[in-house]
Amino acid sequence: MATYHTPTFERLSAAKRSRILKAATGEFASKGFQGTNVNTIAAAAGISVGAVYKYFASKEDLFLTVVDMGYSALDKILWEIIADEGDIFQKIERLLRAAIAYSRENPEIVQVYLNMTTQGLAYLSRDLSGKIETIAAQYYQSLVAAFRSKGLVASDVDERIAAFCLDSLLLIFQFSYACTYYQERLKIFVGPQAFDDDERLIRGLMQFIRRALS
Amino acid sequence: MATYHTPTFERLSAAKRSRILKAATGEFASKGFQGTNVNTIAAAAGISVGAVYKYFASKEDLFLTVVDMGYSALDKILWEIIADEGDIFQKIERLLRAAIAYSRENPEIVQVYLNMTTQGLAYLSRDLSGKIETIAAQYYQSLVAAFRSKGLVASDVDERIAAFCLDSLLLIFQFSYACTYYQERLKIFVGPQAFDDDERLIRGLMQFIRRALS
Repeated sequence: MATYHTPTFERLSAAKRSRILKAATGEFASKGFQGTNVNTIAAAAGISVGAVYKYFASKEDLFLTVVDMGYSALDKILWEIIADEGDIFQKIERLLRAAIAYSRENPEIVQVYLNMTTQGLAYLSRDLSGKIETIAAQYYQSLVAAFRSKGLVASDVDERIAAFCLDSLLLIFQFSYACTYYQERLKIFVGPQAFDDDERLIRGLMQFIRRALS
Repeated sequence: MATYHTPTFERLSAAKRSRILKAATGEFASKGFQGTNVNTIAAAAGISVGAVYKYFASKEDLFLTVVDMGYSALDKILWEIIADEGDIFQKIERLLRAAIAYSRENPEIVQVYLNMTTQGLAYLSRDLSGKIETIAAQYYQSLVAAFRSKGLVASDVDERIAAFCLDSLLLIFQFSYACTYYQERLKIFVGPQAFDDDERLIRGLMQFIRRALS
């Protein structure tokens, strides 16, 4: 699998790697890729600009490393949920709860992901997006297909499009917990106190999804 | 209602205004707000940089004018559909078709909208997003409420969350027809030929939505 950092970066202590990636995540999240300066990242991480370029060939590679790292953490959570006990709707509900927890704890990683999907970064995201989205697609399709064979999902459901709809709802839900624009949007749709009552949001989304598949 | 251009801009001919906004849309779409230079927009529009600042107080205002213009055009289409004959599902299907047509004809406007939702532009989008999303929320809620009272939508559906889910699916669907990242994502979910068969996509989405509300 492609990586976007140099072998030198791998030889750093875990603490130092984490400090550099945290600084980069914060800058990319708040200023976007084009608005971010490598000098500012180096200063925030307490290293020299020259050191940054020993670890990453370019600002592009540093950005992709940040996305890849955030994505790997989320991927691990997804597969733990799929491997767990429960029917499709219990699993989707756990996914929603995991999405809320992940977005609350790591808003900047979700913000960087959103930034990566913009058109100005299409040239950059192509390879990485193939990896990220392929796993998500397989995940949801296998979930829908497994429970269709058990009769819990209607037999005529187009599993590929259903997987697309499920992932789209989860994606916007994550943006809504991590990114100001989508946060404001959700409050406009559901009410100004929407985020005080996660259970109502989870119940409403689960009702929508449960019916959509049954 | 707030506008983001000067009175001088309004006195230009429609053709010249359109030429300037088209040049700005193209630049913002392909390079993002932070990556866009006002000089390049001026050159593409065939006017001086000084003229740009006679029409817009800042790059920010020019960006907001582009979003506002694109949004007004889409808003007009939405309200035509709601005013039209038909039940809720016929209207949602028309919305999907309108979203496809709009995104195919104006991919750059949708790309600029996506860019506007990123965290780096949260300071900029706050006012405008309130306007855009409030109308969308009212639109979908009134649609769900009207047809719930007729028994076409299940009585226990949380209309605010249902409206949020509907708009989220439509939003990602628009991104999928206009922005490279989401285009690739939809192909991964639905298949490499997904965009050769709009009818399959519409059928699959309508099946998901119809069940979700019934």
